[in-house]
Amino acid sequence: MYILFLIRRTMDIPKLFLFAFLVLGISCGPLLPIEPTKGGVVPLPQNVRQTEEFFTVNPSLLQFKITGFTCSILDEALIRYWKLISNSHSSHILRRFSHRLETLWTERSLYLGRLDVLNVHLDEKCKDDDIPKLFMNESYRIEISATNKTLRATTVWGMLRALESFSQLIYEDEQTATLRLNSTHIDDYPRFPHRGLLLDTSRHFIPVKYILKTLDAMSYNKLNVFHWHIVDDQSFPFKSESYPALSDKGAYHPVEAVYQPDDVEQIIEYARKRGIRVMVEFDTPGHTLSWGRGISGILTKCVGISDEYGPMDPSVPKVFQFLSNFFEEISKVFPERYIHLGGDEVPFDCWQSNPNITKFMQTLNITGDYAALESYFIKKLIDIVTIKGLNPIVWEEVFDNGVKLSNSTIVHVWKDGYTNTMNKATKAGKPVLLSSCWYLDHLGGLKDWQNFYKCDPYDFPGTSAQKKLVLGGEACMWSEAVNKNNLISRVWPRASATAEKLWSSITDIDEPVVDSTQMDYMAKRLEEHTCRMNKRNIEAEPASGPSFCY
Amino acid sequence: MYILFLIRRTMDIPKLFLFAFLVLGISCGPLLPIEPTKGGVVPLPQNVRQTEEFFTVNPSLLQFKITGFTCSILDEALIRYWKLISNSHSSHILRRFSHRLETLWTERSLYLGRLDVLNVHLDEKCKDDDIPKLFMNESYRIEISATNKTLRATTVWGMLRALESFSQLIYEDEQTATLRLNSTHIDDYPRFPHRGLLLDTSRHFIPVKYILKTLDAMSYNKLNVFHWHIVDDQSFPFKSESYPALSDKGAYHPVEAVYQPDDVEQIIEYARKRGIRVMVEFDTPGHTLSWGRGISGILTKCVGISDEYGPMDPSVPKVFQFLSNFFEEISKVFPERYIHLGGDEVPFDCWQSNPNITKFMQTLNITGDYAALESYFIKKLIDIVTIKGLNPIVWEEVFDNGVKLSNSTIVHVWKDGYTNTMNKATKAGKPVLLSSCWYLDHLGGLKDWQNFYKCDPYDFPGTSAQKKLVLGGEACMWSEAVNKNNLISRVWPRASATAEKLWSSITDIDEPVVDSTQMDYMAKRLEEHTCRMNKRNIEAEPASGPSFCY
Repeated sequence: MYILFLIRRTMDIPKLFLFAFLVLGISCGPLLPIEPTKGGVVPLPQNVRQTEEFFTVNPSLLQFKITGFTCSILDEALIRYWKLISNSHSSHILRRFSHRLETLWTERSLYLGRLDVLNVHLDEKCKDDDIPKLFMNESYRIEISATNKTLRATTVWGMLRALESFSQLIYEDEQTATLRLNSTHIDDYPRFPHRGLLLDTSRHFIPVKYILKTLDAMSYNKLNVFHWHIVDDQSFPFKSESYPALSDKGAYHPVEAVYQPDDVEQIIEYARKRGIRVMVEFDTPGHTLSWGRGISGILTKCVGISDEYGPMDPSVPKVFQFLSNFFEEISKVFPERYIHLGGDEVPFDCWQSNPNITKFMQTLNITGDYAALESYFIKKLIDIVTIKGLNPIVWEEVFDNGVKLSNSTIVHVWKDGYTNTMNKATKAGKPVLLSSCWYLDHLGGLKDWQNFYKCDPYDFPGTSAQKKLVLGGEACMWSEAVNKNNLISRVWPRASATAEKLWSSITDIDEPVVDSTQMDYMAKRLEEHTCRMNKRNIEAEPASGPSFCY
Repeated sequence: MYILFLIRRTMDIPKLFLFAFLVLGISCGPLLPIEPTKGGVVPLPQNVRQTEEFFTVNPSLLQFKITGFTCSILDEALIRYWKLISNSHSSHILRRFSHRLETLWTERSLYLGRLDVLNVHLDEKCKDDDIPKLFMNESYRIEISATNKTLRATTVWGMLRALESFSQLIYEDEQTATLRLNSTHIDDYPRFPHRGLLLDTSRHFIPVKYILKTLDAMSYNKLNVFHWHIVDDQSFPFKSESYPALSDKGAYHPVEAVYQPDDVEQIIEYARKRGIRVMVEFDTPGHTLSWGRGISGILTKCVGISDEYGPMDPSVPKVFQFLSNFFEEISKVFPERYIHLGGDEVPFDCWQSNPNITKFMQTLNITGDYAALESYFIKKLIDIVTIKGLNPIVWEEVFDNGVKLSNSTIVHVWKDGYTNTMNKATKAGKPVLLSSCWYLDHLGGLKDWQNFYKCDPYDFPGTSAQKKLVLGGEACMWSEAVNKNNLISRVWPRASATAEKLWSSITDIDEPVVDSTQMDYMAKRLEEHTCRMNKRNIEAEPASGPSFCY
C-alpha cells in the first residue's frame, strides 16, 4: 500500500497501471461495467447539495407551474421536457408504476412523497423572439425539498439549463419500479460563455435530421454554440439566394446534398429554442475549391504545379466585391452576430506559381512574403464583415501570421502546442477559444473521453487578466471519416467530456489538473448520461467499455 | 519520377508520403472523394470479363426463370434479390425510368436491350432443409450477353453467391436515369472455405435485429461463417433450457438482455437461408466469470488475491459433468458441427492461489505447470464435445501450450507474430484460421481497411502442403467499445476488406503482396460497395474519406 502511494505521487495513471502490471505482477481482471450514478448531472453543476431523501415522479401527474414570466421559448421547453421525462424512461418501469406501491413508501422515513407540482420561476421578461448571444446569463437555481419545489432563473436561457438539470435528476429505481428524484439544491452557472460543437458538413453532407438530433444532444450537454463549418474544398452545400451557382455546381448534388433556405431557417430556429447560437463558418481564402466550381475567376489559377486551383485570388478586385455581396446575404440569413472566417491552412505554393500574384505583391511591397498576402486578404475581409455588423472569429494562423486584429476579433486555437498560442494571443489582448485537444476525429481507443477531460482551457502560463480572455472552446467533428451513419455515435458521449470542462469549474484556475477522484466520478456520471442520451434517441456509443442500457 | 520510383521500391506507403511531404516538399491537396466503380463486385470474382455493351434493367419487368433444380432456399433468395434490385436504388432514378428513354438508346451501338428474363440454372438438387457446411461448393458462373443470360451453379450455396454478384453488377446511370448492367462473364469460386465474422455479444448485448442486419451484410460480402462469441466474463446472454440460471443470473438483464431459444433459432435459420454457418463459441476455462453467477462451484475460488473467482476449476469432477450436459444441449441447438471452445487468455494466478488446485496438480504429477493444467482441462473438454459429434476449434494458446490435438481440431490464430504461429501449427498438421490482423476493434484512422487488405493468410514461410491447411480466417468484432449504436458502422465497410482477402485469389501464394493497382481498384470498388450497402440499409461508415451517397 505504501509503495503504491509513493508511486501514485510521481506517475500518471496509465504509467502506474503499466508499472503495477509489469513489476508488481498485479493481476488485471476483465474490464467490467462501471456502476452508473442515479440522477447524476452532466455537466456537473457548480454547486450541488443532495440528501438521501427522495420524491417519486409520476409523469402523467407532473405539472410545471409558471410563477414568474414566460414566453413561447419557455412554454415550448416545458412541453419538451415533460415529454422527455415521460417518454425516455424504460417502459417496464412506467408500466409497473402504481399507486399501491407508492403507499408503501410513505412508511419509509426517506420518502418525501410524490412530486406533482414544480414551480417554474423566471425573474425577467422573455420575448418569443429572443436570441441566444455570447455572454447571455445561463445561471439558474434548483430547489427540490419538502418545503420548496422550484426552478428559478433570471433569463429564459438559464431556465432551459435548469430544466435540463431537473430532467437529469430523475432516475429509475428498478427494484420498486419507480421514477425518483432526491432532495436537491443546485446553484449553477457556466464556467465559460462559449461552449461549442463544430460540425463539418462539407466532407460529408449531413442531412438536416441529423443536425437537429445533434442540437438535441447539445442541449442535453448544455453546449450553446453550433459552429457550422458549412462548406469547404470538398463541397458547398449552402444554397445562396444571391449566388445559387455556388451549390448548383459546388455541392455533391444540386438538390439532394443542399441546405435550402428553409432548412437553414429550421436549424437556426430549432437551435434558438434550445438556447444554442448557430455560428456559421465560411472559411477563406484557403479551403475554397468548391466555391470555384460555381463562381469563375475567384480562385488563384496555379501555374506548373499539380493543383489546378489554389486559394482565393487577392489580386482580383472582383473577389472582394463578391465576398461583400455574399456576406451581406449571410449577415441576413444568420441572426448570430459572430461569424467564423476561417483563415487556416492557406497553402502558398499556388500563389507562388502565379505571375499575376507576384506582380500584385510587388505593388503591395510585400514581394515573397505570402503570410503578408494572406494578411492582406483577411484584413480586407474583416473590414467587409465588420461594416455589416458581424464580429469575426479566425483560426489561429491569422494571429500567428501577424495580421493586425482588433481586440474584438476572437482567435480560435486548434493546433498542437496550444499552451503557447493561448498565452501569446491572450497576452496580445485577444479573446480566445480552444479546440486543439478536442478533435473528435482523433480516436484514442477505449475511454478516450479521458483525454478530452484532462485538457483544460486554463492550462497555459498567463496572468488572471489573460485567463479572463478565454471565452471557452469547442469540440470539433471534422467529417472526413464521418457520415450520417456514424456521426452521432462518434460525437457522443465523447463531446460530453468537453461540455463538462467548459461548464463546470472543477479545476483550480492556476493548476487545472483533473484528479482521479474527479475522473472516476465523471466516469460514473458519464455511464448514466450515455444511457440517458440513448433513451432520448441519441445513439451514443459506449462511454468507457462494457455496459448495459435498455 | 525516377527518385519516386526508387523510393517506392524500398518504402511502404505511409513512409513514402512522409518522405515526399518532408523532404521533397510535395504539396498535398485536399482529400477529395474517390470515384466509385459502376457495377464493381466486392469481393472481386476470380475471373471477370466485361465489355462496354450494356443492358438496361427495369425491376418491375425483371423475371428470374428457374431452368434447373430449386428448393425453398433458392425460391426465397430470388424474392429477396428481386426486392433488393427493386428497392435499393435511388428513388429518383426509378421514378424517372420510362420506356420513351429506352427507345432512344436502342439507336446507340452499345445498347443490347432490356434484360427481362434471367435464367437461374441449378445443376444439383437442393433440399428445403439443406445446411451450409465447411467445404460446401460455392462456385458459380454468370453469363450476361446478347445470346445468353444465365446464372449457373452446382449447389444452392453457389447460386446464392451468383445472385449476390448479379445484384452488384447492376448500377445507376444518373444521366439517363436508368439501371444498367454491362455484358459480363464471371467464373467464380472462393479462395478459402471459412470466411468469418466474429461478433462478441457479451461485452455489450446486441439485440437480434442488429445480428440479422449483420447477417444481411455478411451475405453482401460473401462471408459464410457467423462466429458467435456469445458469452464471456461480462455477461451470459444465452438462455440455456437445461441451465436457465446461467442467463437468469449471468446476463446483464434476465429478460431484456437474453437470447431466448426462439431468437437463437431465428438467427440460425436467417443465416442458413443466406448460406452462412452459425458457429457458436463457449469460451472456457477462462473468460467465464458470468457462468459462475448462475452455477455455483464451477469457478476456482481465488485465495488471497484481489479477484474473487478465476477460471473454471479442473479439480472438481462436477465441472466436467456440467460441461457435458451443457454441450449436449448446445449440440442440439446449433446444427453446425464445428464448435469454438475458446481456451484463450487463461490467467494462472488464481489457480496458483488455491490449495485444492495445488493438491490436485500433485495427483496429476504436474506440480507448478499451469499450462499443463489448462491442457488437462481442454483435453477433457475436447473429448466431451467430440463424443457428441462436434469438431473443436480452439484459440492458438491451446496449441502454444502443447495440448495434444488431433489433426481435425482447428487452431484459430489471433495474436501478433502470426506468421510464426501459422507456420508452426500447419507444420504440426493442424488446420488454421487467421484473425490476428483483422481485429475490427483496432482503429487505424482514415482508410484503415488498407491495413486489413495488406494482410494475407498465406503470408508465412511454409510448404504448399502447409498452406493447404489454411482454411481461411475471420474479422473479429470484440464489443468492449461497441453497442448497437455503432456496431454496423464499425464493422462495415472495414470487414469487406477481409471478405475480399478471403474470397479473391489476387495474390501469389508465395509472395502475397497487394500492389498499389490492386489497392486503388479495391478503393474504387469499396466506394461503390459502401454506398450499395447504405442503400440496402446497412449503415456503413465512409470507406476512405469524403464521399457522397444517396
